[in-house]
Amino acid sequence: MSDRILNAELKRKVMSAAEAAEFVQHGDNVGVSGFTGAGYPKALPSAIAERAQAAHAKGEDFKINLFTGASTADAADGVLANAGAINFRAPYNSDRTLRAQFNDGTAFYSDIHLSHLGQQVQQGFFGRMNVAILECVRINEDGTVVPSSAVGNNVEYADAADKIILEVNTWQSEGLVGMHDVYAPEKLWERTPIPIVNVGDRIGDPFHRIDVSKVVAVVETDAPDRNSPFKEPDEVSKKIAANFLQFLEDEVAAGRLSYDNYVMQSGVGNVPNAVMAGLLDSKFENITAYTEVIQDGMLDLIDAGKMTVASATSFSLSPDAAVRMNDRADFYAQHIILRPQAISNHPEVIRRVGLIASNGLIEADIYGNVNSTNVAGTRIMNGIGGSGDFTRNAYISSFVTPSVAKGGAISAIVPFAAHIDHTEHDAMVFVTEYGYADLRGLAPRQRAEKMIAIAHPDYRPLLEEYVAAANAKGGHTPHDLTKAFEFHTRFLDTGTMLK
Amino acid sequence: MSDRILNAELKRKVMSAAEAAEFVQHGDNVGVSGFTGAGYPKALPSAIAERAQAAHAKGEDFKINLFTGASTADAADGVLANAGAINFRAPYNSDRTLRAQFNDGTAFYSDIHLSHLGQQVQQGFFGRMNVAILECVRINEDGTVVPSSAVGNNVEYADAADKIILEVNTWQSEGLVGMHDVYAPEKLWERTPIPIVNVGDRIGDPFHRIDVSKVVAVVETDAPDRNSPFKEPDEVSKKIAANFLQFLEDEVAAGRLSYDNYVMQSGVGNVPNAVMAGLLDSKFENITAYTEVIQDGMLDLIDAGKMTVASATSFSLSPDAAVRMNDRADFYAQHIILRPQAISNHPEVIRRVGLIASNGLIEADIYGNVNSTNVAGTRIMNGIGGSGDFTRNAYISSFVTPSVAKGGAISAIVPFAAHIDHTEHDAMVFVTEYGYADLRGLAPRQRAEKMIAIAHPDYRPLLEEYVAAANAKGGHTPHDLTKAFEFHTRFLDTGTMLK
Repeated sequence: MSDRILNAELKRKVMSAAEAAEFVQHGDNVGVSGFTGAGYPKALPSAIAERAQAAHAKGEDFKINLFTGASTADAADGVLANAGAINFRAPYNSDRTLRAQFNDGTAFYSDIHLSHLGQQVQQGFFGRMNVAILECVRINEDGTVVPSSAVGNNVEYADAADKIILEVNTWQSEGLVGMHDVYAPEKLWERTPIPIVNVGDRIGDPFHRIDVSKVVAVVETDAPDRNSPFKEPDEVSKKIAANFLQFLEDEVAAGRLSYDNYVMQSGVGNVPNAVMAGLLDSKFENITAYTEVIQDGMLDLIDAGKMTVASATSFSLSPDAAVRMNDRADFYAQHIILRPQAISNHPEVIRRVGLIASNGLIEADIYGNVNSTNVAGTRIMNGIGGSGDFTRNAYISSFVTPSVAKGGAISAIVPFAAHIDHTEHDAMVFVTEYGYADLRGLAPRQRAEKMIAIAHPDYRPLLEEYVAAANAKGGHTPHDLTKAFEFHTRFLDTGTMLK
Repeated sequence: MSDRILNAELKRKVMSAAEAAEFVQHGDNVGVSGFTGAGYPKALPSAIAERAQAAHAKGEDFKINLFTGASTADAADGVLANAGAINFRAPYNSDRTLRAQFNDGTAFYSDIHLSHLGQQVQQGFFGRMNVAILECVRINEDGTVVPSSAVGNNVEYADAADKIILEVNTWQSEGLVGMHDVYAPEKLWERTPIPIVNVGDRIGDPFHRIDVSKVVAVVETDAPDRNSPFKEPDEVSKKIAANFLQFLEDEVAAGRLSYDNYVMQSGVGNVPNAVMAGLLDSKFENITAYTEVIQDGMLDLIDAGKMTVASATSFSLSPDAAVRMNDRADFYAQHIILRPQAISNHPEVIRRVGLIASNGLIEADIYGNVNSTNVAGTRIMNGIGGSGDFTRNAYISSFVTPSVAKGGAISAIVPFAAHIDHTEHDAMVFVTEYGYADLRGLAPRQRAEKMIAIAHPDYRPLLEEYVAAANAKGGHTPHDLTKAFEFHTRFLDTGTMLK
């Protein structure tokens, strides 16, 4: 047995994943740890999938309703989806098999803001939470638990669950100890303010206090997180990043931002990587991040003394960066805080700290409405994630995107977004490789001009043609509803949005 | 001179509205008090309109950019719009002339969440604020000011403005003194938590501390607010209210709500009136309201001992209720709090108090996306108002609406909302006269069934026909984009959404 299980009572609960999976029944609501490929349980999902397959082989039903922090990995969502063992899932998923099941209607997905789900589970919106399965780095002598590389909804799921199963993963570095700040808001109707005033404030415990009497099993694992290699930003990403940084510079020039104490939030991917690389060489100092995910670029900014604190709910590091982090865990623990996602994404704190949000998108329309989730309005990709939490409550909200996708067959700017996740009331600034469109203070007709100016040149004439047809119909938000989705229907018919 | 101007320095600034209007120039950003027809300036808008008309007669440009709390009245938005004196306007407008100008593109409107605008003005998103014009009940000896029947964005506008003009309105009851709770959040990057824990907490001053040196004029007025007579709820509204109350009862039965301490937020209109009448006879006790507007029904609930506190940013009372309120101002001052709209609508406080939001809509689609603002996607009605602030941050969000409008020619439930102000991620429960649709925990395909069940029976076959076509195309959110707006285009072509 590993030396990471220090509580005597819980030592006696150690068993195999197969044994532990017996605590999970068909129809159960199961809440698991895990966020963006980090900190998900590594053993139980396979064991549950095997139970499901055995049941299916006997002609019996076996499906669970799976609640996570955000995306997990093949070893969690993947194995369960492949076994046909998921009936319902929330929130945010990046597993391909499960995505296909959502899209063909064989599994059900509810796309909920990441800051909302924990409370909704606690309040019983989904019925009882039967089992919580939480990965951890260590179980302390007093029965408190050190979460692993993500905190996610662990607090709410453990609180709501009838039974708790702990996975103690010795692959996870003990260097994580001390990085967590586990704070549970009071229950509804008894709440007090969340006392975070500065991004770096620690307000909770470096461990998770669970009800030890609810733990039915402890399982030992040694498997790695789904860490993806870092991709060097491509030329388009670098141009988008340069335009985003130009926007920041222009805000400083306008007196609305300072080189000191820029508070960033950032989605994950090529463009954010390029932005962080650009910040390394910028005039911005004492940068902080109040965001969901700690990324490679933040370690670089911390190393360079540019970033003082990064607060998030999970890690999403390349294997190289994970090694760097573990080698200097004591140093990084002074600069990194992992919080529950209810806190990392909480409107209260986001609004207070005055951050600039920067997220990706599938498409935006000429009036600034954003589709983050459903390709051509119908096929779900991953989900809204935390983009709503940050976009709505940011000091300034921005979206960064290449102007086209699929080699030019898809325009990121369309007449009417075929699914809307962020409304014209929330999205302020859009950035492509062709510049930025600052929509603040503009009426819809004025916004269309700005948005078309940052569209790909091949699409500008088509967008202008639409605007002419729409303006002929009139209205505050001009549209010709017979043509509003022509970009999308042309793509579906011909494989390209171009004429 | 009225005995309500007690400050010696400001007494010397008393002048006519025409003289005060000389401080307003073409191109100025002008921030005024006023919210939902209460507390708007009564004299300056006409005087500015006259200046504009005189300039226009000479062939000169004269337009201002007008920032309010929310809707005002003929005497403010109306006279300025009629004079062609408004270039830009934010947020929320119910004036018909101005609305027509937005829709024909001769005036520009930016539809911003009511909780957001004050901060955005302070941070300079719209450039300098040249003049703030604020109605008040009284100017105290020390130069502090008692706001009138709305607080709105007074704090932010006075703070940001170069010049302040005060309108002291003796029509406004001095019984309002003591009802206000004026709290200004710290500037960005220096903020601390807003210390409201219970709906009834007072955290600021009963007056507004302004920079007296910025006051360039004081104008005396004696004109009434735009108070509208109370309309008795009709039969459809009563049915919707009964279904909403049934939803509340079912939440109590499910253990997610208690008869004690129900925290309500409510839009304005017939259905909310009927809901409040229903609450009078319900088992709910110690009701509180954390909302935008104090309405007649809240006075009834307070009188009956059912409601302990109503917190809002303005009054919208019938003339009869206004008399009742003034006659017993001392009593009501113990139960009513008027806050800045940045606080009445603040995500931080809304999320903390755990309220149930209930707002109207123009249309919702079968997947739970809501259009609150643009008829047929193009023609602006009033704006999003505070519905986004409350819907996103509520414990439970709901929308209440008759199933049809225009005698059945318009269905409130459509295949695809032609403008989206509240997304499927935010809207939880819909209520019509045919029942309620609880979308929590459901995937889009499952939601469509629930939504169609509360649509008007005449529209159910058409909606089912659409769902069949959409499902044939597949996807997590099934749509046939060639037919998605057929309800709207049919209405535009034939005058009815019915076939």
